[in-house]
Amino acid sequence: MNRKPPFAPQCPIPATTGDAIELAHGGGGLLTRRLIDGLFRPAFAETADDLTHDGAVFEIDGARLAFSTDSYVVRPLFFPGGDIGTLAVNGTVNDLAMCGAEPLYLSVGLVLEEGFAIADLSRVIASMRQAATAAGVRLVTGDTKVVEHGKGDGLYINTSGVGRLFAAARVAPTRVRPGDVVVLSGDIGRHGMAVMAAREGLGFETPILSDCAPVALAVRQLFEAGIEVHCLRDLTRGGLATALIEIADTGGVGIRLDEAAIAVAEPVRGACEILGLDPLYVANEGRFVAIVPAAAAGQAVDVLRRFGEQVAVIGTVEEGARGATVSLSTIGGSRVLDMLSGEQLPRIC
Amino acid sequence: MNRKPPFAPQCPIPATTGDAIELAHGGGGLLTRRLIDGLFRPAFAETADDLTHDGAVFEIDGARLAFSTDSYVVRPLFFPGGDIGTLAVNGTVNDLAMCGAEPLYLSVGLVLEEGFAIADLSRVIASMRQAATAAGVRLVTGDTKVVEHGKGDGLYINTSGVGRLFAAARVAPTRVRPGDVVVLSGDIGRHGMAVMAAREGLGFETPILSDCAPVALAVRQLFEAGIEVHCLRDLTRGGLATALIEIADTGGVGIRLDEAAIAVAEPVRGACEILGLDPLYVANEGRFVAIVPAAAAGQAVDVLRRFGEQVAVIGTVEEGARGATVSLSTIGGSRVLDMLSGEQLPRIC
Repeated sequence: MNRKPPFAPQCPIPATTGDAIELAHGGGGLLTRRLIDGLFRPAFAETADDLTHDGAVFEIDGARLAFSTDSYVVRPLFFPGGDIGTLAVNGTVNDLAMCGAEPLYLSVGLVLEEGFAIADLSRVIASMRQAATAAGVRLVTGDTKVVEHGKGDGLYINTSGVGRLFAAARVAPTRVRPGDVVVLSGDIGRHGMAVMAAREGLGFETPILSDCAPVALAVRQLFEAGIEVHCLRDLTRGGLATALIEIADTGGVGIRLDEAAIAVAEPVRGACEILGLDPLYVANEGRFVAIVPAAAAGQAVDVLRRFGEQVAVIGTVEEGARGATVSLSTIGGSRVLDMLSGEQLPRIC
Repeated sequence: MNRKPPFAPQCPIPATTGDAIELAHGGGGLLTRRLIDGLFRPAFAETADDLTHDGAVFEIDGARLAFSTDSYVVRPLFFPGGDIGTLAVNGTVNDLAMCGAEPLYLSVGLVLEEGFAIADLSRVIASMRQAATAAGVRLVTGDTKVVEHGKGDGLYINTSGVGRLFAAARVAPTRVRPGDVVVLSGDIGRHGMAVMAAREGLGFETPILSDCAPVALAVRQLFEAGIEVHCLRDLTRGGLATALIEIADTGGVGIRLDEAAIAVAEPVRGACEILGLDPLYVANEGRFVAIVPAAAAGQAVDVLRRFGEQVAVIGTVEEGARGATVSLSTIGGSRVLDMLSGEQLPRIC
């Protein structure tokens, strides 16, 4: 195990200067939120309903649709358990699923750096094809741009997607109610730690594989089981904690988590301890929370267990009187989870 | 007028090595086509109908939709007549229009370089808002990523879009028939030369403004007039010549153009002559061709003249017996137009 501090040289967290973009503006935490609230929301207020959600929903000629976009800048491009191509397909597939939609069609926008190996591009394209087939989506349109050597970093991919909503009712943080429960679809922290290990050349005894996978089929079965799904959120940048803080904030509720119920694999926990990271804030690419009425908790757990073992009810939604907070009950006490103010793991997706 | 050759040092056209990405792979010409045919088409063959078209069309629950994506890497970000934000909205709006669709919803994916000025980002976002309002589309969902200083070039934007098809009949190169005519919506070459002038610091006597503009309303009126539109294509990377070569190739037809009918503004023509560029291959961002039956030519010209003065019938579609070629009749002869094999104007969009 290599114990060198892995962040200092490669990923400095700059001071907030206020007039220039920092890495943390892309981290999904406080600065991302400030950019959205300070710049994007005022500009797009009359056009976008909820810019912090995973996608937009609208109706065209009676068809109820979801639409989502994500750019992928993960480094390195290839990591244990996947690559930027797998990620680009599953990430947008999952964003559509989190809108309560069946993902159908994806677009692919490539920004290539001059000199990038065509053999690597072929590998990534093959991964995208395989991931699309596995998730049941079609890659139907694309675009390729090339920038001069030194003006990119090999390959950036944008995928956008269109899907069909499963249910008439909106799936959104605003539908979350006190008394609802939070169901987590599996253990957390794998993707972030797999990418960190690959990037920093850390040789863990047990290799950590990314959890990168499509969750759309699991989501579909929640709806097919007739469960009243109030909110769905995948646990990407900023991890479980950030996802729940955003939901609590938007929904105006409190969320109380039971730390003992949140599964973290031993190698992930060990790596996090060594690197000084909190697994609650580490990115996942195949995990999500479903917030459902307490009465549907057992049924939701049963459905999700078809897709993974470590499904659990990890918390409950409470009145938001104390402000919209997420608190964590641990052995011997509890603490309030805060939004990350810096960038813990840049370019993890 | 600065007469230094502007391409040599900044934009070398590398030899085709075959194993690494070159700038010309993003130029819209021969290498782009090879990448599509050699790599993307085999991988996505069973999923995508026509990867050389501006977008995909499909039906969801009875709604007939178009879906398109484009990444924008223009340099400089601000140029006479627009900026990367104007371009990112109008470009995708126009791609949807070229599918024969009314553009409705756009997504925005930003890849920002650490250190990029937030004031510049604000300007671009304001441009996007203004362009969206002008084009009648809603910017409904987005994503922001930040890469380390030196791993990007300020700002790259992806926009993807969803629109509603105007007509039941497909708008595609395969519908083009011998006897059809080619209607051009205005003068050509402005966008490419405006960006080149800004990039190279060329001081033309008459400043050239980009033609960047939405063409969706003009397209809508073609359909509302009941014109049987066989094919639409905007004249972006590779210009008028590349667009028509692709249509002729895909449609299996010949296209004969009358050079005298193709409007090129005097400052654009002068700049092209000095730089050794052919305006037929220079990018536009607010011009398109409509290929319609000869009987509808007059009506199509009348409709498009509501939106610009220099609308003209510039050519006719012929049997493709000699191979799918585009030829240009000039005073004293004719020549066959070839696909560009290098990259004439990198990062023009």
